[in-house]
Amino acid sequence: MIDAIHWADLLGVAVFAASGALVASRKEMDVVGFALVATVTGIGGGTFRDLLLDRTVFWVAQPEYVFVCFAVASVLFFTAPHIQRRYAVLLWADAAGLSLFAITGTAVALEAGALWSVSIAMGVMTATFGGLLRDVICNEIPLILRREIYATAAAVGAATYAALHIFSTASIVPEIAGFCACFVLRALAIRLKLSLPVYRARPGRDYPID
Amino acid sequence: MIDAIHWADLLGVAVFAASGALVASRKEMDVVGFALVATVTGIGGGTFRDLLLDRTVFWVAQPEYVFVCFAVASVLFFTAPHIQRRYAVLLWADAAGLSLFAITGTAVALEAGALWSVSIAMGVMTATFGGLLRDVICNEIPLILRREIYATAAAVGAATYAALHIFSTASIVPEIAGFCACFVLRALAIRLKLSLPVYRARPGRDYPID
Amino acid sequence: MIDAIHWADLLGVAVFAASGALVASRKEMDVVGFALVATVTGIGGGTFRDLLLDRTVFWVAQPEYVFVCFAVASVLFFTAPHIQRRYAVLLWADAAGLSLFAITGTAVALEAGALWSVSIAMGVMTATFGGLLRDVICNEIPLILRREIYATAAAVGAATYAALHIFSTASIVPEIAGFCACFVLRALAIRLKLSLPVYRARPGRDYPID
Repeated sequence: MIDAIHWADLLGVAVFAASGALVASRKEMDVVGFALVATVTGIGGGTFRDLLLDRTVFWVAQPEYVFVCFAVASVLFFTAPHIQRRYAVLLWADAAGLSLFAITGTAVALEAGALWSVSIAMGVMTATFGGLLRDVICNEIPLILRREIYATAAAVGAATYAALHIFSTASIVPEIAGFCACFVLRALAIRLKLSLPVYRARPGRDYPID
Repeated sequence: MIDAIHWADLLGVAVFAASGALVASRKEMDVVGFALVATVTGIGGGTFRDLLLDRTVFWVAQPEYVFVCFAVASVLFFTAPHIQRRYAVLLWADAAGLSLFAITGTAVALEAGALWSVSIAMGVMTATFGGLLRDVICNEIPLILRREIYATAAAVGAATYAALHIFSTASIVPEIAGFCACFVLRALAIRLKLSLPVYRARPGRDYPID
Repeated sequence: MIDAIHWADLLGVAVFAASGALVASRKEMDVVGFALVATVTGIGGGTFRDLLLDRTVFWVAQPEYVFVCFAVASVLFFTAPHIQRRYAVLLWADAAGLSLFAITGTAVALEAGALWSVSIAMGVMTATFGGLLRDVICNEIPLILRREIYATAAAVGAATYAALHIFSTASIVPEIAGFCACFVLRALAIRLKLSLPVYRARPGRDYPID
């Protein structure tokens, strides 16, 4: 299943790079700014995962990941300003990257011998880290802080993948199911402004914002 | 003394996780947001320390740390909105975590064979990193930027621990003394709004804010 | 050439530390805040580089780097408030650090056996990471986000160094040429407010900021 994970990783890097380039476009950066933000966003999550697991950082050994980020940044440098609703496209690219990295983060952690619970936590962090980095660098409000379901979707995708992975390691069913679980949940969240209930104090009693 | 350090680490993770959950509560996040911010805050400092020292990241091998963060986040999800003065509780949880991590950061660095000066610097970074991460992710003004003594307390605690550690490695006196030095100093800073003198230009001469 | 790289690294740490101390001064921090921001800014880029390449983090083995940061912070604590145009000095210290780290980042990556493209990307990240950390911690708008050429200069310096390095590994010509390429470009950017063209939609057609 290394191959499926490899392709999912490459695709995740590409779509996160695209989301980074779109933020760069909204900030009217130059072409090197595009390349930098796209690269950091694209490879951030996986870099973090590999550092934590003490593996060789994936893009150091395989420069095609960096090339993919550069290519995506170059293409979007010319096309992004023509996209009418950049923020919407950004949201969907981010959702696809989130779903892909939730799986690959969990998969790599499991393969490295990490425990179930640790692997799922690692999947969530891998999936959310690149986008968080993008938003912190570019002074945007992190998507993870918005009310719509975000980290939850990554957690559901990672758990789905981990659970199915036990039963069938020979097919790509766990990958597909995990991706779909995360992406569908996040898609619903985006379209329906879906959010988990937030615990509030009893109605009729006001607390100061403290 | 591994045991004392282990328990100090576990307690530090728990109180920092609590401070993270309290920030999540102030931002009205959902339960997964609570878990994520609590976990990142709780394990952030130690993760950083372990990466720098090239040790196995502590929570990858010992998932109880992650469980502690989840447990703290779950409990606070229901109780935090009822706390009248969340920011005050947050400040004290942060102070306790700061004191505990100043010690464990220094201890682990010393044990890994790092030099005295490096170990103290590592203690300060370990102690302040989790809280900084929490505040950056959640768009709060980092405690470390406020005027009251903060990093200084961590430095004093780390130095106290390191100095006493040379003389007695068989007792837990260094741990307790280091913790108290940091916590008392930080407590005074919080209660008395204590701050170190800031160097200003000679009175009567105004500089533009540049 | 280890020696040239070692000295360039030490100098880069010192000037970045100075830029960090200047930001600390603008934020009116106390002396420990100066030391902390100076240290994080000074060693941030190199730490990142060493973590990615799985080398021993340079300042853990060689504490003189930490001492340099402390010394710079101490001196600037007393002198910075007397500097009339702190932001200008900060800009130039940052430019020098950027140029030095673009070279050392690339050099260390090449020496560790990384590919050309990866090494240049690593040079750019090493050069920009410390300053980014400084600005994120201190709530400043990152220099990398401003319109003037910044990351581009690092990329040009890194590429110049890498290209010349192939031909002559026995002289320090590549180091000097790489440094000059980056510094001159950044200097022009600062003085002439030089920026790369930003791709905009066709004139006469307005897009909403999306």
